Amino acid sequence: MTDFRPQPGEIPSDATVPKVVVSRISLYLRELQRLEASGQQTISSSQLGTLLGFSDAQVRKDLGFFGQFGYPGVGYRCEELIHAMRDILGTNHAWPVVMVGVGNLGQALLGYRGFGRQNFSIEAAFDADPAKVGQTIQGLRIQHVDELPAVVKSKGIRLGMIVVPAVRAQEAADRLVAAGIEGIVNFAPVTLTLPAHVQSVSVDLAIELEQLSFAVTSKLAKAGAL
Amino acid sequence: MTDFRPQPGEIPSDATVPKVVVSRISLYLRELQRLEASGQQTISSSQLGTLLGFSDAQVRKDLGFFGQFGYPGVGYRCEELIHAMRDILGTNHAWPVVMVGVGNLGQALLGYRGFGRQNFSIEAAFDADPAKVGQTIQGLRIQHVDELPAVVKSKGIRLGMIVVPAVRAQEAADRLVAAGIEGIVNFAPVTLTLPAHVQSVSVDLAIELEQLSFAVTSKLAKAGAL
Repeated sequence: MTDFRPQPGEIPSDATVPKVVVSRISLYLRELQRLEASGQQTISSSQLGTLLGFSDAQVRKDLGFFGQFGYPGVGYRCEELIHAMRDILGTNHAWPVVMVGVGNLGQALLGYRGFGRQNFSIEAAFDADPAKVGQTIQGLRIQHVDELPAVVKSKGIRLGMIVVPAVRAQEAADRLVAAGIEGIVNFAPVTLTLPAHVQSVSVDLAIELEQLSFAVTSKLAKAGAL
Repeated sequence: MTDFRPQPGEIPSDATVPKVVVSRISLYLRELQRLEASGQQTISSSQLGTLLGFSDAQVRKDLGFFGQFGYPGVGYRCEELIHAMRDILGTNHAWPVVMVGVGNLGQALLGYRGFGRQNFSIEAAFDADPAKVGQTIQGLRIQHVDELPAVVKSKGIRLGMIVVPAVRAQEAADRLVAAGIEGIVNFAPVTLTLPAHVQSVSVDLAIELEQLSFAVTSKLAKAGAL
């Protein structure tokens, strides 16, 4: 039996929904989760847009790709919209995930609570280093990477994370693909070569610093300090 | 402390440039850096858009916020546009950065080569744990967090990263603000309360998994597996 319980419904293909819209759905969801946690029950498109720096028209257009969610005179109901966003993203059901590479970053990710909050659970972690294999970290026993195919198959896992050094990333990707993984999050700062049927996203930890340097630079320029 | 007000953990929109445009500048820059590394010298707006899933009009409009960069019949010159993007983002000069918290994630970030590539350099790392203070990690001697204000002042540092557990994040933020830091990247999964003059961005490591779950869910839906 697999953990994967697909949600039936009208999920559009990513051929019709621009990637950038999908990434904004994640941002809307985070903001709605924060609002709900603080007790807010409804929100208008313009309030939601203001919180994220988008126009209300943008918010309505983005949500419009997926259906009708608002109520006249009420706006959006936070709880309902959260559920709808998670339906869209496919995270109303739990996603088991495998991790390859259990160095410092891998160990940090094993303890990262943000994954569980969005319904991702690291079910198995692999390393090639004999000194790491067999160790228990964050409650998970590290397995040898040779065991990857059997674990992926027996647990019906579709998603994997690559957390190895850059020089090892392609090898890890090849192993994940061979094991049948369909989606890869790559934390290594290299571009992977993958077959067309495997989806991937890369994490670039410098992006946030760049956004910040823009903000600080703009502020200094406005203040005449540059 | 009455000037402190809650921030949603995001950079407020610049008066003239929407935040989402700035985030796309980072994406354009990464793609251009990859192209340049592979030897490509010029690119059209439609090629650049196709690589990232945007229209050519979107690319031209985004770049248009900052000036004129293309040449008729040639497109953009990669090297020139990279330089321009970095000018916009403020990363043609090096940014020294301080880090608070040297657990697993902190140690991983100290070794992350993606920062240096975009001109960010972690100049000092702090922890409150006596067992960590004095240790040398990735060539950097970990200092006690009490030394933060003196280091920030003497090195003229404006940017900081918070890499402590969620329960310690606000205290770390208060220390950074008191030390004079103007921009904070927050890796802890909590919303910080910051004064209005301090910019911040939050890193949410689950976003990429969400984008992937959308992609895989869409693919399954298309294949009739849902």
